[in-house]
Amino acid sequence: MNVYLGLDVGGTKVAVGVVTGAGEVLSTLRQDTAACRSGGDPLREIIHLGRAALAQVDGAALEGVGIALPGPVNRDGITMRAAPTIPELQEVSLRGPLTTAFGVPAAGDNDANACALAEARFGAGRGGRLVAYITLSTGIGGGIVGEGRVLRGVTGAAGEFGHQVLLPAGGPPCDCGNTGCLEALASGRGIARRAALAFAAEPAPGGPDHGQWTAERVAERARGGDMRARDVWSETALYLGLGISNIINLFDPDIIILGGGVAVGAADLLHDPIREVVRTRCMPSLVRTVEIRIAELRGHTGVVGAACLAMEMQHL
Amino acid sequence: MNVYLGLDVGGTKVAVGVVTGAGEVLSTLRQDTAACRSGGDPLREIIHLGRAALAQVDGAALEGVGIALPGPVNRDGITMRAAPTIPELQEVSLRGPLTTAFGVPAAGDNDANACALAEARFGAGRGGRLVAYITLSTGIGGGIVGEGRVLRGVTGAAGEFGHQVLLPAGGPPCDCGNTGCLEALASGRGIARRAALAFAAEPAPGGPDHGQWTAERVAERARGGDMRARDVWSETALYLGLGISNIINLFDPDIIILGGGVAVGAADLLHDPIREVVRTRCMPSLVRTVEIRIAELRGHTGVVGAACLAMEMQHL
Repeated sequence: MNVYLGLDVGGTKVAVGVVTGAGEVLSTLRQDTAACRSGGDPLREIIHLGRAALAQVDGAALEGVGIALPGPVNRDGITMRAAPTIPELQEVSLRGPLTTAFGVPAAGDNDANACALAEARFGAGRGGRLVAYITLSTGIGGGIVGEGRVLRGVTGAAGEFGHQVLLPAGGPPCDCGNTGCLEALASGRGIARRAALAFAAEPAPGGPDHGQWTAERVAERARGGDMRARDVWSETALYLGLGISNIINLFDPDIIILGGGVAVGAADLLHDPIREVVRTRCMPSLVRTVEIRIAELRGHTGVVGAACLAMEMQHL
Repeated sequence: MNVYLGLDVGGTKVAVGVVTGAGEVLSTLRQDTAACRSGGDPLREIIHLGRAALAQVDGAALEGVGIALPGPVNRDGITMRAAPTIPELQEVSLRGPLTTAFGVPAAGDNDANACALAEARFGAGRGGRLVAYITLSTGIGGGIVGEGRVLRGVTGAAGEFGHQVLLPAGGPPCDCGNTGCLEALASGRGIARRAALAFAAEPAPGGPDHGQWTAERVAERARGGDMRARDVWSETALYLGLGISNIINLFDPDIIILGGGVAVGAADLLHDPIREVVRTRCMPSLVRTVEIRIAELRGHTGVVGAACLAMEMQHL
């Protein structure tokens, strides 16, 4: 059976899997990134995991290998330009080692583009012509997929949805150096920051030992009926709805997918309010042709996405 | 000589021209839109003008005809979905009549996409891989050109740069029905509105008979050293710089072109301040790879753009 090997290298976990051309995952293996790094040669460990996953599938005819990486990637060499969570791979070209190790063509990109491809091809974006995938977790990233391929722009950085400026003045600082970005306002970190302000008079949930506010705790509070927590989510939906309206007005997609831990975990608090904001703040002619959906793939998105990078390469 | 016929149908003027594949204009003719409409059949007049322009060029071998239209276009039939300035053409398919009249394939689109193609191919975007063209006049429109073709999105409406929301709450109303859009803040009309507020204590320039504030008058005042007028332009540059930063962060282009009457006429007041806003508010890694330029084509942009629509069709 013709298969693709997907290598999903994250800051905390490395997951690998054997994936069919129809997006079915035939085998997977995982390891902590720290464990991969402990021997000093994480790439060797990743290749070892990939070989082990392949060995679990009888009669696999490998077509290609794809690697999803936790940062900006130069795709020619499959080289991470910055790799804070796995510094051994920074500025190391992975194309040669991967091609040699598996004897097939290799492709690589950042994880947001890989997940965008996976959801567009096999998840909530099936059948879409132009799919914008937004990932909402600690930060906010994304990718645009048109006719089965990622629109990458000139340097490979297109789809930085989190760095739209929504507050021209007085917005919170963002990790990118700017202020008032969507990410600073509505990411998991942004939600926690606004919750901390809203609940400033009150100790953190569960008392001082219970740590800081998180999007998850704000969600629990909101579901319990706390109005301040509900306001935090309403504001989050406003910012995300405006960011999505901008994406629609600029790209004119037919499907928008909301993925990532916070979007999926708080879909009950976000999905309808976001749609309402988009309905009232996006160009009316475009609202009619676009659907906003929650991501469908669970668990294996990164692995399937990495495999999709290899599939995408074949359709150049 | 192989040539293309460009028909630029605007709300006030119709311009037609014979254009070479290198973008050289060999002949042009113009007529007021009102005069074209007066006989009740503007399409017949437009075709008549086009034939007259062709007759002025000896040995012209016509390759295709392109038409740029002042509103949203269904490209299959070359049909305007809305045509407030030339209602006789609303919902009329132009493909058949144009193909029959000129005996060559016909292409059509809205004027913003046509101008984007013209500037990308023959103007300030020459050599660019992904060019975002922003037109700043009464309103704000635009188009994205990648590898010589317009990125149109699913309904043909991609590139509505003017309808990014920059003020989540309390912004001025926009013609699109939303509030706080870039167009409502920084278009010619938006500049005039903010000037009227800034100079509220003072009569309109030239006295009550002199009419309303316009971007041009605010520019004259600013050049004369008036600090309130300068503030209006600084604020305009802030909004445009943020809108352009968002475009860069979302599309990752290598060239941004500012065109349209207000941008070209007030380039001295806008170009450097916009670049400064982008330098400080756009993702640092992307600022290095993008250039912001003022449109270069003068006068014939629409005609060359219409001809470019015909050229684009040949390269499908």
